[in-house]
Amino acid sequence: MYRNHTCGELRASHIDEQVILAGWVQGIRDKGFMVYIDLRDRYGITQLYFDQELTSKALFEKAQSLGREFVIQVKGKVVERSSKNPNIPTGDIEVLVSDLEILNKAQLPPFTIEDKTDGGDELRMKYRYLDIRRNPVKNKLIFRHKVSQAVRSYLSKQNFIEVETPYLIKSTPEGARDFVVPSRMNQGQFYALPQSPQTFKQLLMVGGLDKYFQIVKCFRDEDLRADRQPEFTQIDCEMAFVEQEDILNTFEGLTRHLLKEINGVEVAEFPRMTYDEAIKTYGNDKPDIRFGMKFAELNKITQHKDFNVFNSAELVVGIAVPGGNSYTRKDIDKLIDWVKRPQIGALGMVYCRCNDDGTYKSSVDKFYDQEDLNQWADATNAEKGDLICILSGETNKVRAQLSALRMELAERLGLRDPKVFAPLWVIDFPLLEYDEETQRYHAMHHPFTSPKPGQLDLLDSNPGEVKANAYDLVLNGNEIGGGSIRIHDKKTQAIMLKHLGFSDEEARSQFGFLMDAFEYGAPPHGGIAFGLDRLVAILGGQESIRDFIAFPKNNAGRDVMIDAPAPLDNAQLDELNLSLKKK
Amino acid sequence: MYRNHTCGELRASHIDEQVILAGWVQGIRDKGFMVYIDLRDRYGITQLYFDQELTSKALFEKAQSLGREFVIQVKGKVVERSSKNPNIPTGDIEVLVSDLEILNKAQLPPFTIEDKTDGGDELRMKYRYLDIRRNPVKNKLIFRHKVSQAVRSYLSKQNFIEVETPYLIKSTPEGARDFVVPSRMNQGQFYALPQSPQTFKQLLMVGGLDKYFQIVKCFRDEDLRADRQPEFTQIDCEMAFVEQEDILNTFEGLTRHLLKEINGVEVAEFPRMTYDEAIKTYGNDKPDIRFGMKFAELNKITQHKDFNVFNSAELVVGIAVPGGNSYTRKDIDKLIDWVKRPQIGALGMVYCRCNDDGTYKSSVDKFYDQEDLNQWADATNAEKGDLICILSGETNKVRAQLSALRMELAERLGLRDPKVFAPLWVIDFPLLEYDEETQRYHAMHHPFTSPKPGQLDLLDSNPGEVKANAYDLVLNGNEIGGGSIRIHDKKTQAIMLKHLGFSDEEARSQFGFLMDAFEYGAPPHGGIAFGLDRLVAILGGQESIRDFIAFPKNNAGRDVMIDAPAPLDNAQLDELNLSLKKK
Repeated sequence: MYRNHTCGELRASHIDEQVILAGWVQGIRDKGFMVYIDLRDRYGITQLYFDQELTSKALFEKAQSLGREFVIQVKGKVVERSSKNPNIPTGDIEVLVSDLEILNKAQLPPFTIEDKTDGGDELRMKYRYLDIRRNPVKNKLIFRHKVSQAVRSYLSKQNFIEVETPYLIKSTPEGARDFVVPSRMNQGQFYALPQSPQTFKQLLMVGGLDKYFQIVKCFRDEDLRADRQPEFTQIDCEMAFVEQEDILNTFEGLTRHLLKEINGVEVAEFPRMTYDEAIKTYGNDKPDIRFGMKFAELNKITQHKDFNVFNSAELVVGIAVPGGNSYTRKDIDKLIDWVKRPQIGALGMVYCRCNDDGTYKSSVDKFYDQEDLNQWADATNAEKGDLICILSGETNKVRAQLSALRMELAERLGLRDPKVFAPLWVIDFPLLEYDEETQRYHAMHHPFTSPKPGQLDLLDSNPGEVKANAYDLVLNGNEIGGGSIRIHDKKTQAIMLKHLGFSDEEARSQFGFLMDAFEYGAPPHGGIAFGLDRLVAILGGQESIRDFIAFPKNNAGRDVMIDAPAPLDNAQLDELNLSLKKK
Repeated sequence: MYRNHTCGELRASHIDEQVILAGWVQGIRDKGFMVYIDLRDRYGITQLYFDQELTSKALFEKAQSLGREFVIQVKGKVVERSSKNPNIPTGDIEVLVSDLEILNKAQLPPFTIEDKTDGGDELRMKYRYLDIRRNPVKNKLIFRHKVSQAVRSYLSKQNFIEVETPYLIKSTPEGARDFVVPSRMNQGQFYALPQSPQTFKQLLMVGGLDKYFQIVKCFRDEDLRADRQPEFTQIDCEMAFVEQEDILNTFEGLTRHLLKEINGVEVAEFPRMTYDEAIKTYGNDKPDIRFGMKFAELNKITQHKDFNVFNSAELVVGIAVPGGNSYTRKDIDKLIDWVKRPQIGALGMVYCRCNDDGTYKSSVDKFYDQEDLNQWADATNAEKGDLICILSGETNKVRAQLSALRMELAERLGLRDPKVFAPLWVIDFPLLEYDEETQRYHAMHHPFTSPKPGQLDLLDSNPGEVKANAYDLVLNGNEIGGGSIRIHDKKTQAIMLKHLGFSDEEARSQFGFLMDAFEYGAPPHGGIAFGLDRLVAILGGQESIRDFIAFPKNNAGRDVMIDAPAPLDNAQLDELNLSLKKK
């Protein structure tokens, strides 16, 4: 061992001990007659010093020759510091070095290894191994480990079995695109990497392993958006002989355990909200309920006057912004510009100030009197000093726009406190959603989700109305998990696949094994999957997942550190019986 | 919840309770006036009964209509059994059923769901979800979970951090073939699936996370041999600021913990043996030391007579088979046939009986007298009643042949007791091994293994003689783990790659990121990786890994259950800019 203590370990109680430390040179202060070095390892920083009067010339000069990020081993005596540093746990002591070995030299790093670095994103990614030396990144990786361990330990205690499902599986053209893997031993054929272990975990239920989980990498070949990764990690779970209520309770238990164990936060029973209510009240299916500003639909109390913008709108909907009456005219104009940005797409915004004297002042005073405005205030729960913001137009669009505005305002008002945790179950999701582009219904969750009992016939008459026992767990405005009760009989599965546009033959070739399995005694079952990257980030109080991933890819799906993907040599292509098409 | 008890839970203390159970119909015995059903779930079997006199006609007939593997839910009262079954934990009670719901019917399974099934391998694989219902398979998966959890919990307590490394990485033409993944977003380029996270774990050491582990899937596109899988699981570990001794101690601790925790076995300090000694004494680098039969090299005491077979041999080597003198002439002839099989390839075998009266009788009495034979007995440690078996020929071949014979004899003699655990560190592996086929040296471990200090120069003069701080952990004749101290400076790494036949350009393009990393302050580091599939099988007392894997592939790399790999449709190939070559 190159050390007998870590750099985060020595205290006043160690004074006079001979110690051996190893680590990186965080910084050097050369005072001419004294050289101070901050030595860093994973556990902390310890101050070393070399005293010209107490140290051999060779050793002193060696110390002076060190550079940042050199890897060194030192032997020395722990001594009390004359001026203590209360900011670090080792601040009471320093080490008078008697022996110094340079284990490895270092070039000057391309960015500073400090909590706040001068390195840009691309540079940090290219030298990720240096970035990981920085506390903010290192601590996030350690934090992730703790969360994963807490998940495993909790579920194991609940009798769940972690089962490893295969990575080399079969391509199924549903959901996102698959990454595929050409088979050399079965030429012309391909494996696919799993988008999730969905079918396998269902087969484990058919196999009688009634409580399954797995922390597992999944893969989606999507055109990447910011903060999406082609490979990501799921906490994948499934249970047999359960109903929705059992799953909600079990995984509410897990989430509560994590909040307690990891964040020290006790959370009451999670509220539940139907999908329809979430959409109506918050404009989206993953509402952040750390704050109010609930939607009030105002059609009835706005469409009786001559204001044509409202009269012609499918939906008129508003929120009350707490304390928003303090905004200047200029502030409000900026807000209106903000909602009119192409990313949001509103055509305009009506507002109404709620004055402290109980009067109202709206941007549409020409059309509405104080009594009207008072009704708006009642509907939106606006109080004196608030600002009512109203958008109108096509229902789906205007809800999305107002939802974006609500989140933006909450951010500005400091209502999205990362230390406050507001979990929420959103339940009763629709089974299908209509896709304008392909002009057909898709499974909202996936093709294995069961319609609610008794709603199977509705599939023919009004497919958009069919609800499922499907649920999302939302935390602070982020979907951290989602699942459903599954279909467990062949007939229902066949009907479902037919409605999703699969021919009998396609259904057979892609999901035949699952439908066969349903004929050999499949128990009722359901499950949930959590996005670990996102969950860890939120528990860690962060919006971005990237630094919770040791080696993330950039938005083009590239690992810029190892420079992957990369061309293959022709011999490898030949072995796979593949060729690249000419452009 | 479909049940309030499991089928393994009810005891005499539950008598008179109303219970709800759910599970699979294991068997039905219809006595006409009574129907008995064994109801099975993951936790056990509970006997249900329906009494014609106590039960409605409809319910009784429903019970009679059930078939094997039907999934049912029953309500009923726990009653004491008149004839108890001491073989199962629930054998004191049975449940008088008052309510029966068929949750799912089942077709007759293609093989019996019993501990000993009538299903062949291929059938069991095709219906793996049914196979998993059988105790032997189910218990192995649960056992694997326990081992994985024990590993994670032990290493976490030792301050190791589990870090997830990426699956979509870069192809490196070293070791086995990579599986590759075409990139759609970077056309003409490919990711590779990791053969191991080797370079990433080294980068984590450069990044200062000085104790890393990961239980992780790895991939090798090899021509499959029996009991090899294209995807397999490693316990991958790395430490910084350590020497070989630290790694051996740490992972001896882990292994000892597993043997204690999982098997209840206390094992003394693990013996260590050099690679050279293992080869010389056991004929291979993963000796099973649960039993003796050590090799005795007999050149000196056999090559002084006129027996030309020995005189012309590079190596004459023998073992003493305990009690082998009881073999008949016919037994011994069979043994000789066995070593002459093409799989073993010996040309013949000389033997010598050690009689109880102290005399010897050999197959080469024409050439050797009693005194010679007595020397052989001394050399092989043969006792009265033993049989000395001697092979001769080219050193490497004859060692492999005798090693095979030694293992076969131990098997026949019952010396390979799966309940006895004999771990062994094999150390001081050669850095390189010569490959006859490609006529060049390959890295015995991998290109990142460090030569022993001071042996770098030997690389030029006598590469085969260079030793490494590389080690394997052997358990009962199986390599369960292997690792090394790594190179941590660019210069040594460059020399190593050059000796392995990489041009500067190849070294740069494939391992440039690692060599760059070594220039920014890489600490001394080393590690080990365990094959989890094998480790779990051995701890479970089994030779075959297949049933410790939930969904294994067959020897052609196929998943016969989901029928993968499979052809890709043309649209997918087009998106990837790929085409299949015409044959």
